[in-house]
Amino acid sequence: MKEISKLMTYRDSIKVIDATLRDGGLVNDFFFDDSFVRALYLANIKAGVDYMEFGYKGDKEMFDPEKFGKWKFCDEADIRNIVGDNDTDLKIAVMADVGRCSYKQDIIPRDESVIDLIRVATYLNQMPTAVDMIEDAKNKGYEVSCNIMAISAAQEADVKTALEILGQTPVDVIYIVDSFGALYPEQMQRIAALYVEYAEKYGKKIGIHAHNNQQLAFANTIEAAGDGVDWLDATYAAMGRGAGNCAMELLLGFLKNPKYNVFPVIKFIEQHINKLREEGMVWGYDLQYLMTGLLNQHPRTAIAFTKDGRSDYAEFYKEIVAMD
Amino acid sequence: MKEISKLMTYRDSIKVIDATLRDGGLVNDFFFDDSFVRALYLANIKAGVDYMEFGYKGDKEMFDPEKFGKWKFCDEADIRNIVGDNDTDLKIAVMADVGRCSYKQDIIPRDESVIDLIRVATYLNQMPTAVDMIEDAKNKGYEVSCNIMAISAAQEADVKTALEILGQTPVDVIYIVDSFGALYPEQMQRIAALYVEYAEKYGKKIGIHAHNNQQLAFANTIEAAGDGVDWLDATYAAMGRGAGNCAMELLLGFLKNPKYNVFPVIKFIEQHINKLREEGMVWGYDLQYLMTGLLNQHPRTAIAFTKDGRSDYAEFYKEIVAMD
Repeated sequence: MKEISKLMTYRDSIKVIDATLRDGGLVNDFFFDDSFVRALYLANIKAGVDYMEFGYKGDKEMFDPEKFGKWKFCDEADIRNIVGDNDTDLKIAVMADVGRCSYKQDIIPRDESVIDLIRVATYLNQMPTAVDMIEDAKNKGYEVSCNIMAISAAQEADVKTALEILGQTPVDVIYIVDSFGALYPEQMQRIAALYVEYAEKYGKKIGIHAHNNQQLAFANTIEAAGDGVDWLDATYAAMGRGAGNCAMELLLGFLKNPKYNVFPVIKFIEQHINKLREEGMVWGYDLQYLMTGLLNQHPRTAIAFTKDGRSDYAEFYKEIVAMD
Repeated sequence: MKEISKLMTYRDSIKVIDATLRDGGLVNDFFFDDSFVRALYLANIKAGVDYMEFGYKGDKEMFDPEKFGKWKFCDEADIRNIVGDNDTDLKIAVMADVGRCSYKQDIIPRDESVIDLIRVATYLNQMPTAVDMIEDAKNKGYEVSCNIMAISAAQEADVKTALEILGQTPVDVIYIVDSFGALYPEQMQRIAALYVEYAEKYGKKIGIHAHNNQQLAFANTIEAAGDGVDWLDATYAAMGRGAGNCAMELLLGFLKNPKYNVFPVIKFIEQHINKLREEGMVWGYDLQYLMTGLLNQHPRTAIAFTKDGRSDYAEFYKEIVAMD
């Protein structure tokens, strides 16, 4: 049982990362208005959020800039257009996917950039490239984190090997990622214990990025926080791919550090997020996501089900069970 | 940390209670079509649910039968019209609120009734009447449970006294009720430990009835199950007052006892529940419920906000903080 005092005090080492533009961008292909992005930036500052992730450093050879909004690429000039020199306490992050980012070219030295943190995202079978990206970003002067994706479908021996490898890189933060929204809090507790063991051995921090397929994104995030995980990802109104993420409004309501303030989040959702829903953007818990979560599958079939406007849940369940 | 084996095996003593008609009835004043109720009854049988709660035994002197559907009152004839003699493994439950039920008159002897379980619901300041209702129902031959409501706003000493009192009654099951959706899993673990202590002392079972104000109804329910709580309330698509309850589809997906089957639940939601939403019934997580949950307040202001079709969340937050 966790110490009761933890619920009334707080841990200074906790960091909150707003991933609304990046994970939410997967809902609308990153077509956010500048006014939306600027208001989100200001809301994050007022809410005391520690990092704001602006999007991906996507490879323009691979992704057609005509087909995606600018936050798929996060050009330096586009970020500066929102934040100027970012003379605030809010740090700026971008994600760089292994195999989808021309990192040597597109990530410039930090002293020329307004970006603070490079978030490398990798599957287990891509570790050598992930390591190269981490070293590249670190050599350029950035803070660096690494997401190991889809671990709920991985073998524990492979996860341990990856943690051992990452421990020996200069990465600052290693993320637990529940890509399929398949994990229960009891499993999260065990996974957190494993990651924290490596973190202590190698002097790293641990983070968590959860998905809401089984309405457990917030529960898993605070479970992990109680287990010593310090970096907590959240998005406004849980906006994110498929079933969405841990909701920022829930997380800031839970955290007790007086620097966090939930009110600017509520205001932003009222003024900006609900409009996105009215315009037809769809994300969040629904039966199709529960099903892929339960079966520990990638949500791509559920996302297609949503996109096609289907509501024949029972038929969908039969389809994905047949594919299992 | 909970035993890892618990996630792969199951506990025979777990019971699942479908509270859709009763807690969901608070959304539509209990105006469910007979076809809906009959289909729900059949779905519960197929899903392996243990108890189905049909509604309240409301006092007709107090509540106008013109203004509420029949499941506010659960007349014997109305239940029998759905279930006949209920020659199935699914047991029938009704709720009897302290102060809102003419129990001596309206609850008939069990051997004349198709009802199996009387669920007494009480606030802490109503314990003597609750005890009288428990004894009355037990003397008439029923299984009896007791919900102590609103404990998140109660003093622990009072809760302990209530548990001591209930321990000495013939009640079979004592329920942890998170009326305001205010509790976090870490708190639920402590509360469950307290209730289980009394249950072991007096030979009772413990149950849980959660609300979803902070998207924790399912998380709190499985936390409690892991802590030795056996009776688990859920509703289809989480239908229930305000932010709703623990979703049946999540709970049956989690439970490993082969007698449970999530597929009939998915089918029922597709065919019956989504229609209710299209007809304008509103329940489930939204910012106004998060706020009352965070502030550990009764959701009545949030329900009014929803009913009035308001979306000025920030203004609402100011209002309820001012009243706090």
